[in-house]
Amino acid sequence: MGTTAFDHPWLSGLLGDAETRDALSPAREIAAMLAFEVALAEAQARHGLVPEASASGIRRVCSAFTPDMAALAAATSRDGVVVPELVRQLRQAVGAAHASHVHLGATSQDVIDTALMLRLKPILVLMQQRLGRITDRLDALNTAFGTRPLMGRTRMQAATPITVADRLGAWRAPLASHAARLAALRLPVQFGGATGTLAALGHHGPTVRGTLADLLGLADLAQWHTDRTLIMDIGHAMALITGSLGKLGQDVALMAQMGEEIALSGGGGSSAMPHKQNPVAAEMLVALARFTAGATGTLQQAMVHEQERSGAAWTVEWLVLPQMVLACGGALRLAEELLGNIRRLGPA
Amino acid sequence: MGTTAFDHPWLSGLLGDAETRDALSPAREIAAMLAFEVALAEAQARHGLVPEASASGIRRVCSAFTPDMAALAAATSRDGVVVPELVRQLRQAVGAAHASHVHLGATSQDVIDTALMLRLKPILVLMQQRLGRITDRLDALNTAFGTRPLMGRTRMQAATPITVADRLGAWRAPLASHAARLAALRLPVQFGGATGTLAALGHHGPTVRGTLADLLGLADLAQWHTDRTLIMDIGHAMALITGSLGKLGQDVALMAQMGEEIALSGGGGSSAMPHKQNPVAAEMLVALARFTAGATGTLQQAMVHEQERSGAAWTVEWLVLPQMVLACGGALRLAEELLGNIRRLGPA
Amino acid sequence: MGTTAFDHPWLSGLLGDAETRDALSPAREIAAMLAFEVALAEAQARHGLVPEASASGIRRVCSAFTPDMAALAAATSRDGVVVPELVRQLRQAVGAAHASHVHLGATSQDVIDTALMLRLKPILVLMQQRLGRITDRLDALNTAFGTRPLMGRTRMQAATPITVADRLGAWRAPLASHAARLAALRLPVQFGGATGTLAALGHHGPTVRGTLADLLGLADLAQWHTDRTLIMDIGHAMALITGSLGKLGQDVALMAQMGEEIALSGGGGSSAMPHKQNPVAAEMLVALARFTAGATGTLQQAMVHEQERSGAAWTVEWLVLPQMVLACGGALRLAEELLGNIRRLGPA
Amino acid sequence: MGTTAFDHPWLSGLLGDAETRDALSPAREIAAMLAFEVALAEAQARHGLVPEASASGIRRVCSAFTPDMAALAAATSRDGVVVPELVRQLRQAVGAAHASHVHLGATSQDVIDTALMLRLKPILVLMQQRLGRITDRLDALNTAFGTRPLMGRTRMQAATPITVADRLGAWRAPLASHAARLAALRLPVQFGGATGTLAALGHHGPTVRGTLADLLGLADLAQWHTDRTLIMDIGHAMALITGSLGKLGQDVALMAQMGEEIALSGGGGSSAMPHKQNPVAAEMLVALARFTAGATGTLQQAMVHEQERSGAAWTVEWLVLPQMVLACGGALRLAEELLGNIRRLGPA
Repeated sequence: MGTTAFDHPWLSGLLGDAETRDALSPAREIAAMLAFEVALAEAQARHGLVPEASASGIRRVCSAFTPDMAALAAATSRDGVVVPELVRQLRQAVGAAHASHVHLGATSQDVIDTALMLRLKPILVLMQQRLGRITDRLDALNTAFGTRPLMGRTRMQAATPITVADRLGAWRAPLASHAARLAALRLPVQFGGATGTLAALGHHGPTVRGTLADLLGLADLAQWHTDRTLIMDIGHAMALITGSLGKLGQDVALMAQMGEEIALSGGGGSSAMPHKQNPVAAEMLVALARFTAGATGTLQQAMVHEQERSGAAWTVEWLVLPQMVLACGGALRLAEELLGNIRRLGPA
Repeated sequence: MGTTAFDHPWLSGLLGDAETRDALSPAREIAAMLAFEVALAEAQARHGLVPEASASGIRRVCSAFTPDMAALAAATSRDGVVVPELVRQLRQAVGAAHASHVHLGATSQDVIDTALMLRLKPILVLMQQRLGRITDRLDALNTAFGTRPLMGRTRMQAATPITVADRLGAWRAPLASHAARLAALRLPVQFGGATGTLAALGHHGPTVRGTLADLLGLADLAQWHTDRTLIMDIGHAMALITGSLGKLGQDVALMAQMGEEIALSGGGGSSAMPHKQNPVAAEMLVALARFTAGATGTLQQAMVHEQERSGAAWTVEWLVLPQMVLACGGALRLAEELLGNIRRLGPA
Repeated sequence: MGTTAFDHPWLSGLLGDAETRDALSPAREIAAMLAFEVALAEAQARHGLVPEASASGIRRVCSAFTPDMAALAAATSRDGVVVPELVRQLRQAVGAAHASHVHLGATSQDVIDTALMLRLKPILVLMQQRLGRITDRLDALNTAFGTRPLMGRTRMQAATPITVADRLGAWRAPLASHAARLAALRLPVQFGGATGTLAALGHHGPTVRGTLADLLGLADLAQWHTDRTLIMDIGHAMALITGSLGKLGQDVALMAQMGEEIALSGGGGSSAMPHKQNPVAAEMLVALARFTAGATGTLQQAMVHEQERSGAAWTVEWLVLPQMVLACGGALRLAEELLGNIRRLGPA
Repeated sequence: MGTTAFDHPWLSGLLGDAETRDALSPAREIAAMLAFEVALAEAQARHGLVPEASASGIRRVCSAFTPDMAALAAATSRDGVVVPELVRQLRQAVGAAHASHVHLGATSQDVIDTALMLRLKPILVLMQQRLGRITDRLDALNTAFGTRPLMGRTRMQAATPITVADRLGAWRAPLASHAARLAALRLPVQFGGATGTLAALGHHGPTVRGTLADLLGLADLAQWHTDRTLIMDIGHAMALITGSLGKLGQDVALMAQMGEEIALSGGGGSSAMPHKQNPVAAEMLVALARFTAGATGTLQQAMVHEQERSGAAWTVEWLVLPQMVLACGGALRLAEELLGNIRRLGPA
């Protein structure tokens, strides 16, 4: 049982999303790290840096490898990163003949950053699908209620009449653009070795990296170990999506308060007032938006990534980015549910 | 296995703290919520609002109550808060004779906020103890190395000579003041009922609240359901402690980089460079400080707590405050370890 | 004409406060820095470290000193702080006989931090007075409308009936506690010299510092050059006040939207809809609360203040704290105005 | 004299940038707002909605219009936005014959948001030019020192040898990508009328908007009054640039501390230690990076932009975005200076 919201036994179902959480989980991280080591050996074998037999041996072992989790945890507390111990266990498992060909020329950051990309890739697809379903629901609501009148409200005051279609359109436009943004994100491999120069591979560095990227289905990009722009772009995308859904949630909560502008089913109960129907999903969208907005400001601090690798700045990313992804996944799930619970928009 | 850092199978040991996590855990939250319901019935029985038999029955049932966790999770997704379902289960468990005396006059926020205070109370004590051990270690280092010379450094440049004692004193002073700050925090009961007025208890409200506070070992304070100052003060204390330890960590990391100013044991290993000794704990202190600093800015957004209860603002607290407490617990653990690993300060 | 909001020709009147801005202004900063140098020379003269004639000469010159502002600006761009050039100008002005007794044993941080305290002191008094006037207005509104019914609203839904007095009480309680918090803040002198050890003054350091504090009307406190807790406490107080006023503003804006719960005069006009009365002051309170909340998260980053003086962390304070003070001053002004414009609370 | 850093008599020269500040200034804002009104009348004249004579009259008056600034300030305090009063003054100046054709179908947000785009456009060009000059300087440093050895440092420890070219390349790559990002930003007109529907213009709305965009040299985009994605993208770009320059600054400050890795001229002086050469520009880059990072988290809160116009969320943008632009302008200026002051990289 986790203690923080997205891993919490009852809050994770309220605020998070099981599918996103699964795709980002430690189990998937181990699988992705092993996939990196397998693809690295394979890429190096293709370019003659590692014997084929070693690449095969590493693949075979990794396909059924179960790390000693207690040892991983203990070593991470000491090393600040799980990779040295995982590589140690892996080298032991592949045996002396192949051990020196495991993780050849790579460093911890290569494994961690690439494993993050491998897990994010299906999550970004999932998020695009959900954005698609949400815009579909908005279109269906538009078909059903779009022509109904609604009071336009500016600065918390009735302004001029609009239609339900206008409000729905304001919700829809940013979500469609965010889906396109996600589709345009190219997730790259990270491969730079000890200090990012791929020095250990000599002139083979870039070609091995290219093959490694191909094998992993990631983009080939020169090492970005100290340039965290991509991490910031991903965080920014999470904040934009969650923020636009927060605006939708705030609008729904205000419509519910006004009373006649919306009819919702599936609202939440109260321990003191059993008759109440609270627009819980709408409120959660606002909470997740404010949380993710603030997280952006913390994540961005990790741009000051000193020298060839900042343990401190990199760890700030680990503390913040996964939660932003989970918050965004949760907001997408909640928005889909909330729109599915709208029984009426505009006057009855 | 959790996905976010403080609940993560290998990151939680690096960044978090098992003791703090245990004290804040969902299991302790359920225990604290049940303690609230028991004490409420008892307080109401003392003032004649509830039969003694019901109070006894509620206590007896709660002493061995195991909630249906799946139902709690499902209901929280709908209600936005776990309390309505917990109360429903509890009422069922106590039977028809006592059911109406469970949670009498209370609302979800009373239970959640009070249960938070009950869990934070021992954590604040734990933190004071750790601060005490840390200042003890600083004193011991001062005894051992305080008179040695050190180059004072301002604006990242050598300035004028100081002593090791000066540097240690700059680390120590804020930690001692933070311990005093924690000791001065009075954690109160929350009890306001549906909209914070205790209307359901008529003129008995304040006296029941006073007894409830006594029974729970908390301070008696008028309902603070929309005034989140105390939550901000707790978050602020977490940020101050973690921030001061981040300064200590940054200094140690810089001393380790300069080379001759410090000798550390227990440094972390590297997957690419087995010879390296990385000052991992020092870096983690910096990362936790930057994380907690940023979290303060998000938490503070929850001050805009609209009307008699804001689902959105309150939930922002749930997303942020527990992590700040865990980050502070982790930083205290790491600082104690780091200071224990200092073999020398000043020139050899 | 300034470009950022609190110095802007038309936004500063909307969001800021002239009185707070004047008290924090560069002109007052120069006066406060000169006051430091005068008091330092005087304190050192009392303890025999500086000739009385020099202290008198320094006081006489400072009482009519107008710095060369262009030179101050040019030098600050180079030195990162205004003090070296100000001291240079001052030494020139006092003449060769006294020049070496100007700024004796002090460093730039002593002057800047102490000058900040000197300017904040009357601002904290001003803020307490305003909080007093605001709570007075809330009391007057309570006398006029307190007994009227109001619908209590939780989670953006009608809950159970309360009275206007309940809502007013929820606004009032945190403001009264914030006033007490401001009154309890003891603003200290900063005096540490080059690397915070007062080494240049030998054993006279603490006694000179005590006299300096007395002369300036500040508390005597050991040098806090790297312990920025007090700066964080001041920022925290600003965020709490602005946050509580943001809650008040959000409530008023929601009441205005509901229509019948409040009657306001003095609302803002619209360029497209001349008939509208926008609750502008209420919205500005929300904006300032969210701004100040976020600023807290940035300010807190300055706790990681490396070694004996961090140019980077210290400058972050300069970028953030003045704005938090101005935002708080603006919020207090706006709240007072807004409450003065309430014509009715509760049903007509 | 301003009180906050970017408008401050001596801090603005340290942290800001005169060229950026001028381009963003209130004087330019008035010019841009007038340009909007002129182009709007002209566009409406082209589509027969306004007499040519009125469009000419409005242009003529605006070409020499000096608003009553005191009245603008007073009205902004009441209305929350400067536009209603500016339009009132403008209508008075054009005379009764044309008055009703000023600001036809437009709302305050159209003017403010479009005027922001008009001012940002040359600033983004300026920033691209500066990024170009900075990468040129990095290239020149590479030519001069690129082959020299440097110790690669990871986790604050010496790792494996790299070259100066490697370090320079890590600084250069993100800056080049940020320049491309700025070049790709298409700044659009905002034109939606009272509640964003352009209802007042009937079916002419989109065509008038297209012509308006052409006349102003902005992109044509459907009204984005509640979709603040573009504002966030601009803020994100500012944070990325400032963040990458903060990494450069942190590296230079650390190199300066190590002593032999860099030779810098133009360092800052100290009031206590005249011999010191502080790497002030490097520190300022770190400070601006941390400031802008934090500001991102506040700005992103403005995504929760309720209903058809949120006075509160919109105002948060005004409080934050200009400072992010100024911080970025300042960081670019400082980086150019700092690189120009590098006399040597790598060993002497």
